[in-house]
Amino acid sequence: MTYKHFFTALVLTFCVTTTTLMAQSSVMGFADDTAKAQLKLESDYDKLLNANNLDEWMKYMTAEPHHVGSPYDKKVVDFVAAKFKEWGYEVRIEKFDVLFPTPKLRLVEMIAPIKFTASLVEPPVEGDEFSKQTKDALPGYNAFSVDGDVTADLVFVNYGIPADYEELERRGISVKGKIVIAKYAGSWRGIKPKLAAEKGAIGCLIYSDPEDDGYFQGDVYPEGAFKNEYGIQRGSVMDMPMAPGDPLTPGYGATDDAKRIPISEAKTLTKIPVLPISYHDALPLLTALKGPVAPESWRGALPITYHIGPGPAKVHLKLEFNWELKPAYDVIATMKGSTYPDEWVIRGNHHDAWVHGASDPISGLVALMEEARAVSILVKEGHQPKRTMMYCAWGAEEQGLLGSTEWVETHAKELEQKAVAYINTDGTGAGFLGAGGSHTLEKFFDQISKSVMDPQTNVSVFDRRNAIQQVSGGAPWSHYELEALGSGSDYSPFFQHLGIASFNMGFGGESSGGEYHTMYDSYKHYKRFKDPSFQYGVALAKVAGRTSLRLANAELLPFEFGYFTTIVKGYADEVTGMADKLRKEADTHNAMIDSGLYALASDPKDNLKVPNAKPKVPHFNFAPLENALGNLEKQSNRFMKATQNGVSDVKNKVSVNAILKDMERALTKEHGLPKRPWYKHHIYAPGFYTGYGVKTLPGVREAIEQSEFNDVEAQINILASVINEFSSQIDKAVSLMK
Amino acid sequence: MTYKHFFTALVLTFCVTTTTLMAQSSVMGFADDTAKAQLKLESDYDKLLNANNLDEWMKYMTAEPHHVGSPYDKKVVDFVAAKFKEWGYEVRIEKFDVLFPTPKLRLVEMIAPIKFTASLVEPPVEGDEFSKQTKDALPGYNAFSVDGDVTADLVFVNYGIPADYEELERRGISVKGKIVIAKYAGSWRGIKPKLAAEKGAIGCLIYSDPEDDGYFQGDVYPEGAFKNEYGIQRGSVMDMPMAPGDPLTPGYGATDDAKRIPISEAKTLTKIPVLPISYHDALPLLTALKGPVAPESWRGALPITYHIGPGPAKVHLKLEFNWELKPAYDVIATMKGSTYPDEWVIRGNHHDAWVHGASDPISGLVALMEEARAVSILVKEGHQPKRTMMYCAWGAEEQGLLGSTEWVETHAKELEQKAVAYINTDGTGAGFLGAGGSHTLEKFFDQISKSVMDPQTNVSVFDRRNAIQQVSGGAPWSHYELEALGSGSDYSPFFQHLGIASFNMGFGGESSGGEYHTMYDSYKHYKRFKDPSFQYGVALAKVAGRTSLRLANAELLPFEFGYFTTIVKGYADEVTGMADKLRKEADTHNAMIDSGLYALASDPKDNLKVPNAKPKVPHFNFAPLENALGNLEKQSNRFMKATQNGVSDVKNKVSVNAILKDMERALTKEHGLPKRPWYKHHIYAPGFYTGYGVKTLPGVREAIEQSEFNDVEAQINILASVINEFSSQIDKAVSLMK
Repeated sequence: MTYKHFFTALVLTFCVTTTTLMAQSSVMGFADDTAKAQLKLESDYDKLLNANNLDEWMKYMTAEPHHVGSPYDKKVVDFVAAKFKEWGYEVRIEKFDVLFPTPKLRLVEMIAPIKFTASLVEPPVEGDEFSKQTKDALPGYNAFSVDGDVTADLVFVNYGIPADYEELERRGISVKGKIVIAKYAGSWRGIKPKLAAEKGAIGCLIYSDPEDDGYFQGDVYPEGAFKNEYGIQRGSVMDMPMAPGDPLTPGYGATDDAKRIPISEAKTLTKIPVLPISYHDALPLLTALKGPVAPESWRGALPITYHIGPGPAKVHLKLEFNWELKPAYDVIATMKGSTYPDEWVIRGNHHDAWVHGASDPISGLVALMEEARAVSILVKEGHQPKRTMMYCAWGAEEQGLLGSTEWVETHAKELEQKAVAYINTDGTGAGFLGAGGSHTLEKFFDQISKSVMDPQTNVSVFDRRNAIQQVSGGAPWSHYELEALGSGSDYSPFFQHLGIASFNMGFGGESSGGEYHTMYDSYKHYKRFKDPSFQYGVALAKVAGRTSLRLANAELLPFEFGYFTTIVKGYADEVTGMADKLRKEADTHNAMIDSGLYALASDPKDNLKVPNAKPKVPHFNFAPLENALGNLEKQSNRFMKATQNGVSDVKNKVSVNAILKDMERALTKEHGLPKRPWYKHHIYAPGFYTGYGVKTLPGVREAIEQSEFNDVEAQINILASVINEFSSQIDKAVSLMK
Repeated sequence: MTYKHFFTALVLTFCVTTTTLMAQSSVMGFADDTAKAQLKLESDYDKLLNANNLDEWMKYMTAEPHHVGSPYDKKVVDFVAAKFKEWGYEVRIEKFDVLFPTPKLRLVEMIAPIKFTASLVEPPVEGDEFSKQTKDALPGYNAFSVDGDVTADLVFVNYGIPADYEELERRGISVKGKIVIAKYAGSWRGIKPKLAAEKGAIGCLIYSDPEDDGYFQGDVYPEGAFKNEYGIQRGSVMDMPMAPGDPLTPGYGATDDAKRIPISEAKTLTKIPVLPISYHDALPLLTALKGPVAPESWRGALPITYHIGPGPAKVHLKLEFNWELKPAYDVIATMKGSTYPDEWVIRGNHHDAWVHGASDPISGLVALMEEARAVSILVKEGHQPKRTMMYCAWGAEEQGLLGSTEWVETHAKELEQKAVAYINTDGTGAGFLGAGGSHTLEKFFDQISKSVMDPQTNVSVFDRRNAIQQVSGGAPWSHYELEALGSGSDYSPFFQHLGIASFNMGFGGESSGGEYHTMYDSYKHYKRFKDPSFQYGVALAKVAGRTSLRLANAELLPFEFGYFTTIVKGYADEVTGMADKLRKEADTHNAMIDSGLYALASDPKDNLKVPNAKPKVPHFNFAPLENALGNLEKQSNRFMKATQNGVSDVKNKVSVNAILKDMERALTKEHGLPKRPWYKHHIYAPGFYTGYGVKTLPGVREAIEQSEFNDVEAQINILASVINEFSSQIDKAVSLMK
C-alpha cells in the first residue's frame, strides 16, 4: 500500500541515542562457532541472489492491471505459487471472499458559477505502453466510499485535518451541508472524509496539489518521474484506524462459511461519498472559489489565489459502486523448520496492485521471491532452517490489508502459539535503508544493517543511512534506529492485532516520483526512475533475507530489552512533556483571549473570530508508568547481565526461547485500545486522526491529545500494567537462564 | 523608497527585554509642570489634524507621474513649498543636479530554444484611470544599471544571494559569461547584479515571483491589491551599501559649482546590465530552462518545474540609458526655535515617486504636511517650539536617496553642530506601528507609542503592536522595541553618515499589496486597499508629531542610555555567539567532508560535488569590547541615577543638552566602515551583502560573517574605542548634572 512517506519522515524521526552497552556477539542469538556458520551461510545466500530474476518477474507480473478480483491478479497468484512450488516449498493458496466495491458511476461537475465536468481520466502517455491498457484497469476512486448523489457549495479545507477546521471556525466557515475539497498529504487519506463527515460535510473530493505531488517536485511523467496534471491517486478510505480487513467479517476470517454482516452495518465504510481527482480537474473548481483567501500554509502550487469558499463554486458529486464480494488470494509457502517446526518466521509482501503496481507492490514482492528462491537452494544444499520459514504473498492489500488481515484473523490462535516474528516489505526503491519495527529487535537489526553493503558505495547500508541522517542535520547514529510502526501495510494485523514482533523495510530517497497508486506505476516508470538494475531490490533481499535466516536459525532468539527500555522511556518523556506543553499552551492561549489580544491583533477587515478557549489541562498521576518503567529498566538490566557472556552461557534455551517468542504479545491487552478494540498493542498504533502515522503509547497519548482528560489516568494504569507484565516475562526468562 | 518589508521582519526582529528600571516622568525631558503643558499642547495638536487634508493633497500630488526631473515633480515641489509658505514657514527649495539615467532602449528576448520577446509593459487596468497615464511615466527598469548588449545562456539563481551561489557550486554550475535571472526578495535588489557580476555573469534579470509578490499572496490588481502578472517593480540598483547619493559627487553636495567626476569613474553604478521584468515575461524564460531541478526552497509559485539551467534558454538583453543630470528639489521649511534656534529637530519624507507613488511616498508626505500645518497653528496660538523645527520634502529619493544625501553632504558641518534628531517617514499604510531608530531614544519613543490611540480599537498603538507581537508567538513587550535601522529611506545620510539620532516610522500589516514601485501605486489603489479614510495617516501624524514636538520643547533632551546599553550588549552577544556557532558549524561541516558523509549522502544521479571546506574560525579577543560594555553600563547607570529625581533636579541643562545632542555622533568614526568610508556609524549599517537589511556592530559582524578573520580584532578595538568615547561623553554629562 505505501512506503513512500518513509523518507519524508526522516528528519522528524524520534531520535534516541542509547548509552546501554551490551556484550557484542558477532551475530546476536548465536554462539561464536554457530555464528561463523551462519555468516558463511549468509555469504552463500548473497551469492545466489540474481537481479535479473527480479527484473523478469516484475515484467511478467506487471504486464497487465492486477487488482483484487481481476483476471490477471489470479495469473499473478498462480505464477507466484508455481514459483514457490518449483523451489520446493509447501504451497497453499488461501482464498477469502472480501467486500470490494468498484465504480459503476463517477461524476464530478461544477454547476455554478460556470459549468465544468471533471474528466477523471488518466490519458496514455508517450513511451509507456502500459498506460494504454485501460481494459481491466480500475479508474481513479477511493475504495469504501459510500454511494452518494450530492450537490452543494464547495469549501477548500487544506489537508482536512483537525487544525484546518480550527482555522475555518475562526473565519466563521462551516462545512455543514457542503462538499469539501482537500489536498492529498498531511494525513492518511481516509482521515479527510472521516473528519469532514464529523463536521457535517456531505461529500468530499481529494486532489493531488502539484506542490506536494506534481510539477513543483520535479519534471512530470513521461518527461520525468513526477505526477502529471492527470494523475489520480487511488486508495482505500476504509476507517483503518478503527480496524483494517474485510468490513463484513469484523474481527474474524472471511472464510467461505463465515457469517457476513449486512453492508449497512459495516462500521469502516465512509459516511459520505468521496472521490480523488487530478490537479487538472481540481484547478477549475479551486479557481471558481471565492470567500477568504486561504492561510499561507494552505496554498499549493497551482497558479491561482487559493480561496476557501464556501462557493460560489457549486459541485455535483455522484458516485455509485458495485458492492461485490471478490476473492482475495494469499499465497503461503512454507519451508518446515528442522528443529523447531512450530516456531514460525513469516515473511510477507502483497501481490495485488491498484493498476500495474510495478513499484507498489511488485518491487518488494520480487525481492521476497528471490529470497525464497535463494533459501530453497541453501536448503537443497543441506541448510534447512531450524525454525519454519513462511513466504507469503498477500491479496487485496490495497483496499485495507484485506488478504493479510483475514488470514491473520483466521489463523490467530495458531499464530499466537507459533509466530516468532513477521517481516514485511511493500514497494521499494533506491537509496537509503528505511526500516521500522519492534524495538526489542532493534539491536538485532542494527547488526544486519551493518553487514549488508550499499550497492552504489563502499559502505554498509547503515553507514549510508547514517550519512544522510547527519547531512540532513540529525545527530549521528551509533546504531540503526528503527522507526515505530504505524500502519499502511500488511504488518498491522500481525503486529498491532496479535502482538507479533514485526519489521517493515525498504529502500528509498533516490527514487521519488508521482506514480503512487496511479495508472503510471508501470514497469516502464520503474525502470526509468526507481531501481533500474534492481540492485537495491537485491540489497533488500540481503537485508530481509538475513533478518529471516537469523531469526530462523538463532540458538537464542535475538530479542533484547535495553534499547526497548530506552525507547519507551523516551516515549513516556514525550507524553509527559506534551501534557506540560499543552497545559502551558492552553493557559497562554486562554490568557490571550481573556486579555483581548486576539481581537487587537486581527485585521477588522478579515472578520476573524476570537478562537475558542482550550480546555484546561490537569496534572496527571504518571507515577504508575514511572514505576513500571523503573521496573522494566531493572529487568532489562538483569537480562543484559544474563546474556553478557554470550549465548553458550545461557541455560534452558528452549524454554527461554518459548518466553522470548511471546514477549511482544505481553505488550497487548485483549480489550484493545479505547474505541478500537481490534488494536491490541499498547505501545504502537496508527493514529486515530493521522491514519498511517504512528502514535506510541497510544492509549495515554491520544487521551491527552484529544482532550479526553478523564480517561488519561485509566490509560496510564493500563499501560503500566502492560509494561509490568512485560517485565515479569523478562524476569521469568532470566530466572531460567541462570 | 521602501517601508514594505518592515512587517515581514516582525517575527525575526531581534528581541530584547530590558530589566533596566528608570524613573518614569510623565513626559521624558520635561519637569512635572512643563510636562502638563506639553500634554495639553499635544492634545490641542491632535484636534487640529484633519484626515480630509491628507486625502485632498494625495489626490493632487498623485494626479500624474512625478519622478525626479518630470514636469509634475516640479508641480508637486511647488505645491508643497506653497503650502509650507502659506502656513508661515520659512521655505527654501534647494536644487541639486544629479545623475539620473532613464531608459532609451529596453530589450529582452529569448533567441533559443524558442523565440520570445518580453513585453516589458504594464497595461492599463479597469477602474484605475491612472494606470492609463503612460505619458511621462517611467517604464519598468532599474536605475543605475549600466548600458549593455549581451547574449548568453540563462541561469536561474534563486534570490541571487551568497548562499545561492554555494548551491550552484555544488552542482558544478558557474554563471561566468551567463545571464542570470533572480527572484525579487531575499535581499535588496541591488545585491543581485552586484553579486552576479562578482561571480562573472554578464547580465541580470530580476523578476517578481508570484509566490513572493503575486497571486500566491492574494487576489491581483485590479480585483485585489496584489501584483498582477504584468506588474514590474522598478528600483535603484546603485551600490547603496557602498554609499547612496549622486554617483558623480561622492561625499559632497551636487551643487551647481560642484566638480562632477566622469561617469566612467562613478563607483556605485552596476558592473553589468540589469532589468526587472514581470512574472508574465519571466514565465517563458524559466519554462525553457533545463538542467538540474532547483532546490525546493528556490521554487516559486509559477506552474512549472523550476530548473537552474544553464540554458538551453539563450537570452539577448540590450539596455541603453539617457545619462543625464536632472534637478532634484528639496523643500526645506523652517520654524525657528524660540529658545534654542540653533538646535534643529528635522522631519522628512520624500516627494518623488517612481510613477504616481500614492503609497510610496505620498502617503507619508501628506502626514508630514498635516503635522506641519497643525504645528503652524499652534505657533500662531503662541506655542512656538523652543528648538527649530524643519520639515523637509526630499527629491530623487527613489534613485538612491539623492536629494537627502546631497543636502546632508552640502550642509554637513552645520548639521553636525545643530541637529538634535531626524525623524523620517516614507510610505505608510494601516494596522500596526512599525518604528526603528536610535536606541538612545527608545525609552522616549516608548512613551509616545503608549500615548497615541489606535484608530480602530480602544487601545494605544503600543498595545495593538504588542498584541500582534504576542499572537505571532513573540514574547510580550514591556516597552516599544525599536528596530535597528538599516537603509532604504532618507534617514541614512543623517543617521549613518553624520551620526544624527534618527527615527523611521509608519503603519502597516493591514494594507499589503503588490503595487510597490509599479504603475499601479495609484490613488485608486491606495483608497481601495491601504488606508481609505487616512485614519492611520492621522495616527502617524500624531506619533511623528509628538516625536518632533517633544524633542523641540524638551528641557532636558530625552536621551537615555540604559536601553541602549542592553541592546548593544545583546548585539555583542549575538556577534560572539555567531563566532562560536560558525566555528562549530565549520568544524562539523569540515569533519563531514573529511569522513566522506556528503559523498555518501548524495544521490549519484545528481552529480553533486562535495561542498568546499569552510575556513576554520579562530577564537577572537573580545575582551576590549567586553571592557567597553562594562564601562558603558557603569556610565549609563550613573546617568540613570543622575536623572532619577526628574528633570528639575538636573543642573546645567543647557550644557548637558549640548552634550546629549551630540551623543549619537560619538558612535561614528571619521574613517567609516571597512571598504565603505561613507558609512561612519559603528553600531548600525546596512549589510554589505543584504542591502537594506541592518547589520549591527557592522565592522565586527561583517568581518566574521565574511571570513575576514584577520580584520576582526582590529574592528573589535575600533568598536571598543567608539563605545568608550560614548561612555566618556555620558561621564561628562553626568559631571555637569550634579
